[in-house]
Amino acid sequence: MRKLYVVGVGSGKEEYLTAAARAALAAAELICGYTAYIALIAPLFPEKEVFATGMTRELERCRHALEQARAGRTVALVCSGDAGVYGMAAPVLELLPEYGGVEVEVVAGVTAALAGAAKLGAPLGHDFCVVSLSDLLTPWEVIEQRLRCAAAGDFAIALYNPSSKRRAGYLRKACDILLETKSGDTPCGVARSIGREGESVRILTLAELRETAVDMVSTVFVGSGATRVIGGKLVTPRGYRV
Amino acid sequence: MRKLYVVGVGSGKEEYLTAAARAALAAAELICGYTAYIALIAPLFPEKEVFATGMTRELERCRHALEQARAGRTVALVCSGDAGVYGMAAPVLELLPEYGGVEVEVVAGVTAALAGAAKLGAPLGHDFCVVSLSDLLTPWEVIEQRLRCAAAGDFAIALYNPSSKRRAGYLRKACDILLETKSGDTPCGVARSIGREGESVRILTLAELRETAVDMVSTVFVGSGATRVIGGKLVTPRGYRV
Repeated sequence: MRKLYVVGVGSGKEEYLTAAARAALAAAELICGYTAYIALIAPLFPEKEVFATGMTRELERCRHALEQARAGRTVALVCSGDAGVYGMAAPVLELLPEYGGVEVEVVAGVTAALAGAAKLGAPLGHDFCVVSLSDLLTPWEVIEQRLRCAAAGDFAIALYNPSSKRRAGYLRKACDILLETKSGDTPCGVARSIGREGESVRILTLAELRETAVDMVSTVFVGSGATRVIGGKLVTPRGYRV
Repeated sequence: MRKLYVVGVGSGKEEYLTAAARAALAAAELICGYTAYIALIAPLFPEKEVFATGMTRELERCRHALEQARAGRTVALVCSGDAGVYGMAAPVLELLPEYGGVEVEVVAGVTAALAGAAKLGAPLGHDFCVVSLSDLLTPWEVIEQRLRCAAAGDFAIALYNPSSKRRAGYLRKACDILLETKSGDTPCGVARSIGREGESVRILTLAELRETAVDMVSTVFVGSGATRVIGGKLVTPRGYRV
């Protein structure tokens, strides 16, 4: 077959899989991915061969998946959420010219911004930005500039990778940049471990968010100027006159 | 039950449904939605009662769904793509305080930006913005400001509602704003009818996009400064050294 599916599996729970993602995983002879996601997905396909590696070994997984596909196998490389949003679709497609004859199919999935937003209400109901606070692969100056532009455009904002052990304090720095133009009363939300064990959501103001510790399994939402808290839900109206 | 599910059904084809969306539709006694989406989804649940109305009658559908849920029925209100991205989750939550006792659950789905991106490659592989060009509910000045800020932040951009009969020329106006700061060579993409009959994708430059007519079933992608065309795919690298 020489086929590689790059599959967004949502949160990892079966209920967030699309039928297309399930079909791709069922078709694969080999499932590759980050150890933690393989642990979530592999039990759904107990008979499959898996190749799992740890964090920061993304390119090794991509190359292994491409090599195995080039050798004639049907391979699925799993990503949490969507395959294209900070996922493996981009590096696989960058490497693909080295692996002639392999056909790649990207299978979209429910990214954390959408899954978290649904649990909080509808914070992304109008124009929005998605920004990662991880400076592992992006200079911090670029992240700052994007935060300033997201605030200047009055977008609702979803922040990925808001924190980690190494990057404690990044969310506070991001809030300080947003507070240059946005009110401290701006409604915000934190969605943690959505679609996994112990999922939780919290609604708070931007000023409170600045003082809040979040972890790396959280997605953070910062409202636009139109975002409101209605009945305990975070809502960015599209503009219908209700 | 007094339960209302607001369900993102993806493109409408069964393969883009999540298991959670399918379960919500299966649990519902009544499925409400825009006529065109009901036509896609209803055949999967042939025994269900449906309530379908035309475009611009969104609030009527929301109120009908809430009224039926308040009357004790389990109701699903379907949205294409994700329920929260320009979908019905926000207006339902805005109206909910008028309908005491109804429990609302938003079920996330694969929005057009993710589905289209997967078919084009990985244009949203790094930070991105989603902007609707519809000025039906948003002043055009706000849309212009958001486009300028999206360009200033060097975001990859997904444009929803890029055109309609009434709004021919809006995409050209949007391109002109982006061309104030972005190169005419910026790689762009158009994804049309993704996950439906006759789906297609096209990769072109921003200068070419300005001269291109697109319709309202298309989603338009404009690259960041890092976006490249690799092997016929549109790719925004995250920054791994490949």
